[in-house]
Amino acid sequence: MSMKIFVLGGDGFCGWPTSLHLSALGHDVVIIDDLSRRAIDVELEVGSLTPITPMGTRLRAWREVSGRAIPFHRVDVAREYDRLLALIEAERPDAIVHFAEQRAAPYSMKSSRHKRYTVDNNLNATHNVLAAIVESGLDVHLAHLGTMGVYGYGTAGMKIPEGYLPVEVVTEAGDRVRQEILYPANPGSIYHMTKTQDQLFFAYYAKNDEVRITDLHQGIVWGTNTPETLADERLVNRFDYDGDYGTVLNRFLMQAAVGYPLTVHGTGGQTRAFIHIRDTVRCIQLALEHPPERGERVRILNQMTETHRVRDLARLVSDATGAEVAFVANPRKEAAENDLHVTNDLFLGLGLEPTTLDGGLLAEVSDVARRYAHLADLDKIPCTSTWTRQQRAGAPGAAGSSPEGAPTAPEGVLTGSD
Amino acid sequence: MSMKIFVLGGDGFCGWPTSLHLSALGHDVVIIDDLSRRAIDVELEVGSLTPITPMGTRLRAWREVSGRAIPFHRVDVAREYDRLLALIEAERPDAIVHFAEQRAAPYSMKSSRHKRYTVDNNLNATHNVLAAIVESGLDVHLAHLGTMGVYGYGTAGMKIPEGYLPVEVVTEAGDRVRQEILYPANPGSIYHMTKTQDQLFFAYYAKNDEVRITDLHQGIVWGTNTPETLADERLVNRFDYDGDYGTVLNRFLMQAAVGYPLTVHGTGGQTRAFIHIRDTVRCIQLALEHPPERGERVRILNQMTETHRVRDLARLVSDATGAEVAFVANPRKEAAENDLHVTNDLFLGLGLEPTTLDGGLLAEVSDVARRYAHLADLDKIPCTSTWTRQQRAGAPGAAGSSPEGAPTAPEGVLTGSD
Repeated sequence: MSMKIFVLGGDGFCGWPTSLHLSALGHDVVIIDDLSRRAIDVELEVGSLTPITPMGTRLRAWREVSGRAIPFHRVDVAREYDRLLALIEAERPDAIVHFAEQRAAPYSMKSSRHKRYTVDNNLNATHNVLAAIVESGLDVHLAHLGTMGVYGYGTAGMKIPEGYLPVEVVTEAGDRVRQEILYPANPGSIYHMTKTQDQLFFAYYAKNDEVRITDLHQGIVWGTNTPETLADERLVNRFDYDGDYGTVLNRFLMQAAVGYPLTVHGTGGQTRAFIHIRDTVRCIQLALEHPPERGERVRILNQMTETHRVRDLARLVSDATGAEVAFVANPRKEAAENDLHVTNDLFLGLGLEPTTLDGGLLAEVSDVARRYAHLADLDKIPCTSTWTRQQRAGAPGAAGSSPEGAPTAPEGVLTGSD
Repeated sequence: MSMKIFVLGGDGFCGWPTSLHLSALGHDVVIIDDLSRRAIDVELEVGSLTPITPMGTRLRAWREVSGRAIPFHRVDVAREYDRLLALIEAERPDAIVHFAEQRAAPYSMKSSRHKRYTVDNNLNATHNVLAAIVESGLDVHLAHLGTMGVYGYGTAGMKIPEGYLPVEVVTEAGDRVRQEILYPANPGSIYHMTKTQDQLFFAYYAKNDEVRITDLHQGIVWGTNTPETLADERLVNRFDYDGDYGTVLNRFLMQAAVGYPLTVHGTGGQTRAFIHIRDTVRCIQLALEHPPERGERVRILNQMTETHRVRDLARLVSDATGAEVAFVANPRKEAAENDLHVTNDLFLGLGLEPTTLDGGLLAEVSDVARRYAHLADLDKIPCTSTWTRQQRAGAPGAAGSSPEGAPTAPEGVLTGSD
């Protein structure tokens, strides 16, 4: 059954292939984006390694290739509430996919300005969408891209559930009462923090206004293209290799392609969850095809397919390419080593067939990295953002280890630059 | 030991008497406020029942009475980050008391615009203060006014702890592991939701940047004046009696004074936590005198002294004054009846001697209400904000009871119009 679907942030790394995938399936897709990701490229003096084309060119190419139109509206969802509401009232979408947030942890930590932009943009964007859905009076299903980074207490050998945690509390009378609670948040960056705050928006609007909401806690995305973005060179997806927006596996493959050592932060003992971009778009499709009922609590799914330790990924890429591995100071404030066991039964139950690292698609990313390697600015590869003033000042104990006697951050399941 | 203390929101109902109390103790107080509360009076076409004077008059009067100066800076903390940072860097405060948030639940529910203002203002204000403290590099203790309304799972006979809840989780190996988590949030309005999101800001900044933070979960404040605001008529504190900003007990006493029935929402079975304004200012003093250590988790204290069922309060006021009690539709989406048991050991341990309802101060509020009753606009007394579209439309089952078959809101401990 064909749906009308708004994709907020439909120009981005996940939003663009999602828009094409949903359009290819026969849905009426409308892209809403303020093109802020391209503006950040300008700010950081870096760009997608792949030569992405302007939105107008992209959409003309898609029309030629598929025969399908995707209208585009340049709207800042965090600032232009009235335009967003007017579009919802005029177009009456069945679903809204919400990618319209600043999504890089290192970018969110660069300075007070970047912290404040991330908070202001992400929280107002999410809240505006919810307020507009309620004000429109329409029964719109909202699917939001969250992050595995919202979880934080999963290191005591516990498998991370999908969003909700059963706990026992003791009453005044001494009885043990079982409750299911939103998984306690323990974000590792300003960016991740905004996603934990988004969860509270969702819980509230699902409860008070019975908005139907799906929150997808995504792992680190790797890969570049989907069948749709490969259909024409003008449809190519972004590939970020810089220290702010480059996700860890794509960054390693890029570094290997240009003969740059694979930079592992700290010991590389961080275990992360991963998903291929082809599975991202499939998961969003599945989530839209299986919305929650009105009045149901927020449906939370873990959108990841496998976990790996960062140093194991580096070794894998090193073995395949001969690249060196370089251990560098960790710019983040986090535990040096962590385990990570994640449940993703809900998507598997809906029919997801995971694209895993050993499935051969690593070669596709290497090909992209090699093909455009000459366009790369190697100075942009290191991560220059730091999580604290001490790290910035290069103080003893900074970057990875904790100063003597200082409290260490609790162990968490922080994802990488997602 | 004298401290330099910024009071953000120092023109408001709690902020003004707090500023005077701290100044009277010999601290160097600086008030920062955008006077938005007075602007909202203009918007709602209502005002404080007591004739509050302009800030310049207030501060001149305080100087005459006490010999102490309180500098005032008109700054919008949510919007004017650079001015806030410059003031912190120039004045180097030891502590910042943060009242600079929109604080009425009914106001936050009036329309999309009011929801969006509350979210945008409260979240950016709190985040700006934290980012500015970190950017300044100073070790400033931040004391924030939270709300009892952040709690939500306390109805299973469990006594609400101070901020943190011990729970047990089960590991993959089947072991039971005890963890202490931030109390799961279950806010009952957009306003309360922003306070639960504030908690995530605080947890993050305490962890990543070791900012020293105290979060005070306050009950509904009653009373009007403190010894300092009584020292001169020009120092009088606000008294709100309208349906948006009037807190329940003050509203009842006002209604009794003007011969208006005491309007109880629903069955009046809601149990709320209360504190007198004199104890509010004492609690903030105690919190500032006992800051957490650097690197410590957020110190959370329950700032309340007693709990009462709303209908019992109405009966108490009715018995004392002869006023009628009128049960009206509940504009909120909440359980009709709830129990509430709250721990406040931390403040009692610091030496707080509670001012309770049976302590005679009820008469003081009645006196204020009677003295200025002729200035009241009785049309402003009912609460006209509603929590959902159904209630707004006056649909069957609206306002208090749930429509047949519709899910009811989980029981919570939502405070009143705090």
